[in-house]
Amino acid sequence: MAKIAVIIDDLYEDSEYSEPSSAFKKEGHQIIHIGLMKNKKVTGKRNKITVRIDEKISDVAVDDFDALLIPGGFSPDKLRAYEEPVEFVRSFVKSGKPIFMICHGPQLLISAIVLEGRTITGWKSIKQDIINAGAEYQDQEVVIDDNLVSSRSPADMPAFIRECLAKL
Amino acid sequence: MAKIAVIIDDLYEDSEYSEPSSAFKKEGHQIIHIGLMKNKKVTGKRNKITVRIDEKISDVAVDDFDALLIPGGFSPDKLRAYEEPVEFVRSFVKSGKPIFMICHGPQLLISAIVLEGRTITGWKSIKQDIINAGAEYQDQEVVIDDNLVSSRSPADMPAFIRECLAKL
Repeated sequence: MAKIAVIIDDLYEDSEYSEPSSAFKKEGHQIIHIGLMKNKKVTGKRNKITVRIDEKISDVAVDDFDALLIPGGFSPDKLRAYEEPVEFVRSFVKSGKPIFMICHGPQLLISAIVLEGRTITGWKSIKQDIINAGAEYQDQEVVIDDNLVSSRSPADMPAFIRECLAKL
Repeated sequence: MAKIAVIIDDLYEDSEYSEPSSAFKKEGHQIIHIGLMKNKKVTGKRNKITVRIDEKISDVAVDDFDALLIPGGFSPDKLRAYEEPVEFVRSFVKSGKPIFMICHGPQLLISAIVLEGRTITGWKSIKQDIINAGAEYQDQEVVIDDNLVSSRSPADMPAFIRECLAKL
């Protein structure tokens, strides 16, 4: 069974955290919430779900996990204002382990400067940012490029979860 | 006296709307709120201020205004998911009229593909997006490049307002 890090801060899109996490746990995988501060409670932008950060990002390593989930909403933009989340994501991409990102999730990979030559999708508002980062943007419900699995929005959830599970 | 369009949607950084707007009105300038829907009430991310949209973006033209203010927060990212705000901002930049942007404001200019060769600042989380858009990012309280006046955050407000007023 896989150990999956969920990198998260306030204002995540609630269902983009809860639905994949539930699906992963249902299959027996373990979820570890990593964020800016251990034990901090972070709340989704729709105020539906609050989660507690299990580990501070600077206290964990890529080696501790088998995969990374980046929920969207405004959480990725809040995280990328700090060095540790960006460094962690950069190392995760380079490790070749699976990264699952949806909506605004790719913003962390843009700041980590790891998208040159990759093919992904994401929420339409960040399309130009993805292209400017050197990636190809595909307007599809799910895009798989080696270790990167990406979707656009909660509407893509069934395809997103299906392809994430296939990587685990 | 100048007619200043404020392009705005929900989750703007409250003070980045209210403080420049108050300063402009105090000097006798007129503020017109433009957004996705006429009469829609939009609320800041700190829930302090609500404003009513005076005009739908697709019902106005650059010729109607002398300057444009783009408050930050998550409002610019919400707006740039639609074509009309992006088109409007593109036309405004090309008109040479002053554009005042702070925090996440430059996101609209990135989507409008008008930053190549320009020099601006913005909130640190979008620094890489600004660079990838072909602009030079300067980490200063206010940056002036011809018609573009930009600042990083509410902490830069006095310098931002001073340089905006100097352009009016």
